[in-house]
Amino acid sequence: MLEKNIIKKFKDIAGENVWTEEKDMMCYSYDAAFGEQCPPDVVVKPATYEEVSETIKICNENSIPIITRGAGTNLSGGTVPASKGGCVLLTSGLNKILEINTEDMYAVVQTGVVTADLAAAVAEHGLLYPPDPGSMKSSTIGGNVAENAGGLRALKYGVTNDYLMGTKFFYTEGNLIISGGKTVKLVTGFNLNGLMVSSEGLLGVMVEHIMKIVPPPAASKAMMVTFDDIMNACRAVSGIIANKVTPATLELMDSFTIKTVEEAAKIGLPTTADGLLLIEVDGHPAAVEDEFQIVKRICEELGGQVQVANNAEERDKVWEARRKALSSLARLRPTLILEDATVPRSKIPAMMQALKDITKKYDLTMGTFGHAGDGNLHPTILTDKRNKEEMERVHKAVDEIFAVALKLDGTISGEHGIGSAKAKYLEMEVGKGTIEYMRRLKAGIDPKNLLNPHKMGL
Amino acid sequence: MLEKNIIKKFKDIAGENVWTEEKDMMCYSYDAAFGEQCPPDVVVKPATYEEVSETIKICNENSIPIITRGAGTNLSGGTVPASKGGCVLLTSGLNKILEINTEDMYAVVQTGVVTADLAAAVAEHGLLYPPDPGSMKSSTIGGNVAENAGGLRALKYGVTNDYLMGTKFFYTEGNLIISGGKTVKLVTGFNLNGLMVSSEGLLGVMVEHIMKIVPPPAASKAMMVTFDDIMNACRAVSGIIANKVTPATLELMDSFTIKTVEEAAKIGLPTTADGLLLIEVDGHPAAVEDEFQIVKRICEELGGQVQVANNAEERDKVWEARRKALSSLARLRPTLILEDATVPRSKIPAMMQALKDITKKYDLTMGTFGHAGDGNLHPTILTDKRNKEEMERVHKAVDEIFAVALKLDGTISGEHGIGSAKAKYLEMEVGKGTIEYMRRLKAGIDPKNLLNPHKMGL
Repeated sequence: MLEKNIIKKFKDIAGENVWTEEKDMMCYSYDAAFGEQCPPDVVVKPATYEEVSETIKICNENSIPIITRGAGTNLSGGTVPASKGGCVLLTSGLNKILEINTEDMYAVVQTGVVTADLAAAVAEHGLLYPPDPGSMKSSTIGGNVAENAGGLRALKYGVTNDYLMGTKFFYTEGNLIISGGKTVKLVTGFNLNGLMVSSEGLLGVMVEHIMKIVPPPAASKAMMVTFDDIMNACRAVSGIIANKVTPATLELMDSFTIKTVEEAAKIGLPTTADGLLLIEVDGHPAAVEDEFQIVKRICEELGGQVQVANNAEERDKVWEARRKALSSLARLRPTLILEDATVPRSKIPAMMQALKDITKKYDLTMGTFGHAGDGNLHPTILTDKRNKEEMERVHKAVDEIFAVALKLDGTISGEHGIGSAKAKYLEMEVGKGTIEYMRRLKAGIDPKNLLNPHKMGL
Repeated sequence: MLEKNIIKKFKDIAGENVWTEEKDMMCYSYDAAFGEQCPPDVVVKPATYEEVSETIKICNENSIPIITRGAGTNLSGGTVPASKGGCVLLTSGLNKILEINTEDMYAVVQTGVVTADLAAAVAEHGLLYPPDPGSMKSSTIGGNVAENAGGLRALKYGVTNDYLMGTKFFYTEGNLIISGGKTVKLVTGFNLNGLMVSSEGLLGVMVEHIMKIVPPPAASKAMMVTFDDIMNACRAVSGIIANKVTPATLELMDSFTIKTVEEAAKIGLPTTADGLLLIEVDGHPAAVEDEFQIVKRICEELGGQVQVANNAEERDKVWEARRKALSSLARLRPTLILEDATVPRSKIPAMMQALKDITKKYDLTMGTFGHAGDGNLHPTILTDKRNKEEMERVHKAVDEIFAVALKLDGTISGEHGIGSAKAKYLEMEVGKGTIEYMRRLKAGIDPKNLLNPHKMGL
């Protein structure tokens, strides 16, 4: 509990946009990740950069942890306090698109702008903002930067990091830091843009970004490929990449996910299939046709049945199927644990086999879907956190999933970050020395450890 | 001067690969930048990662500055001591290509591998390592990472940062840090890869990198476009970008540079032209043809005369012209000062006009060429550092070039870094607060300030 005079200071800064009641604090003890709930002491929603700076200064003077939160779609517990208390700083008041420059192809946005809103605003100018995380209708650009969000198009177009040209942020003393700018190349001092990417709120409070935008592809072709054996779907993924085709999107769904989505959404998915690939190639019309033929040949050689979307409506249906995967699975049981272990693309068949074995070994309900083209699968365990015995099996399965990913030259997190959820696994991947380096880096910048403390185990 | 027992320790580690004689130290008081010469005390060339670690430990224990040096092609004084003394750590002994993975498309290389050697090794497998800095025949991958090197292809293919998947480096206590990995997406902890990019040797000593490689374009078309007025060449650059065409390469040369290259290389350049654009479009054959037609139309509308390279020989001639620019200019006078102020692409005409005005105002000899498509021009002043009066004019001109670039929403460095050469200008661009943040970051990681101290003014 904070003293009344400190709460008053926050109210002097942000007026009505300060909350302290228990029911409100409960709301901010959750994000989209599975984990312990720790309510903050206070929630502040600044409306201006100055209010952000002043809020940070009060926190610094009174040693109050600062947990920055965009839309709370975080999948690793990054936007909730690691232990009870602290100040949740909401960025949703900073939601203006400040500039869309079509000549030099960038957009300047405040950190709380919703990703889909930026994409729509850019599309009105005939341009494309490519990163399209599953959460894009609610997640914010700031959150995307803090987690380096990927998305369906990441295979060809890259992740948020590939679009960040500039950032303005504050550090614990309330000073404004400016990194990057409006030029496509820039090397003035340390790459603080790069450092902000996937910093998960531990190194500063971001308020503004310059994001690169690009010309959209002239043509595209979407298809759904049905396989009797999901292992062949996985081999097709590796085959497509090795054949030097880079689809815009190359997504996989296993039979459990297919059936669940179909039950929830009734969009006519092939419920008898063992695996589905959802693929879109794009670019120059002639390139699209050539790439389509290569993809078709590889899939068919592995027994896949290719169904092309003949119009925008059919295309939308393909992507609706994919975008509904997570919400459909979430309906089945009270607790959902979504992982994002990622491997080199040639290891996708081995990873899928391991996931099948682990599901069987621990007798779990698991659906797997994800960005197969990136080597990034989302094994999704459906369980009930009140069932202790089952949760023990879940935790063992998760440990094993990470161990397999690392053994296959992969990573414990392709796009969801470490936060609280994966802190205990980090050392397995990067070693003690690297964590010590991260700790020193953070201590240099944030000596009181007030910026999202104890996340990543720091 | 270091004590004999310390030199002995270095010799115990690296054997014959330790130098201390004055004539050798003189060699390592230079790199490709114009600046004060400060010789080190000792030069050590480790042959293994362990030798790197041991060398660093000796430096740390004895508070000896560590200046990491690849090929010394640095253009901002980043690889020479900022003040007399210290240990230059040569990476040229770490020059093995450890793996080229054609299925998952990455190469694992030691930090001292020469960029052109990696490109050639990758090409043997029918793949492409895109970053091609002007210095690529001698510069190293480690140097490219430390400076975030660009190159002729950066416009379409991006800079070194866009290809860095993983890095192993040591920090001052000799511990090994591992960042990134072999997957295309990875967000485990802070983005230390991103931090190493353009860190200029201030945050660690790198020993190994995982670099992304890509399928090469199926077709390409190179052309040389002659303009009677260089301002129209600049307008063509902005027009091409605004028309949503992204050539692989889009380079500019002014009349002074054209004449100088032709005199030196006799390759048949149009010496009466006021400006030249050297352009290559690449990709799917149909896309190449479409893009060529758009580029041709834009250039011709602005009075450009388009000459297409009809075969590999003619194409090579186009790029030979560009690659000879710097060395040809360097022949003219004793001192060459090469800048890399960069602006948004729509501001290229304004920047070129300012460069013309500044040259005239200060009565200097200046050739301008560079990566116009990136907004990155290289105004190159030819002078004689012994002529104090002229040097005063040179310094004023450089100050003015940077001021104009910043006024045009640009940056003082697009690709050469800050080092010693631009340290005094950094604050103009990023402000005091940002420099303080960089200082804290460095102090956290390197409390004794031994890693390339005083560069970037830190």
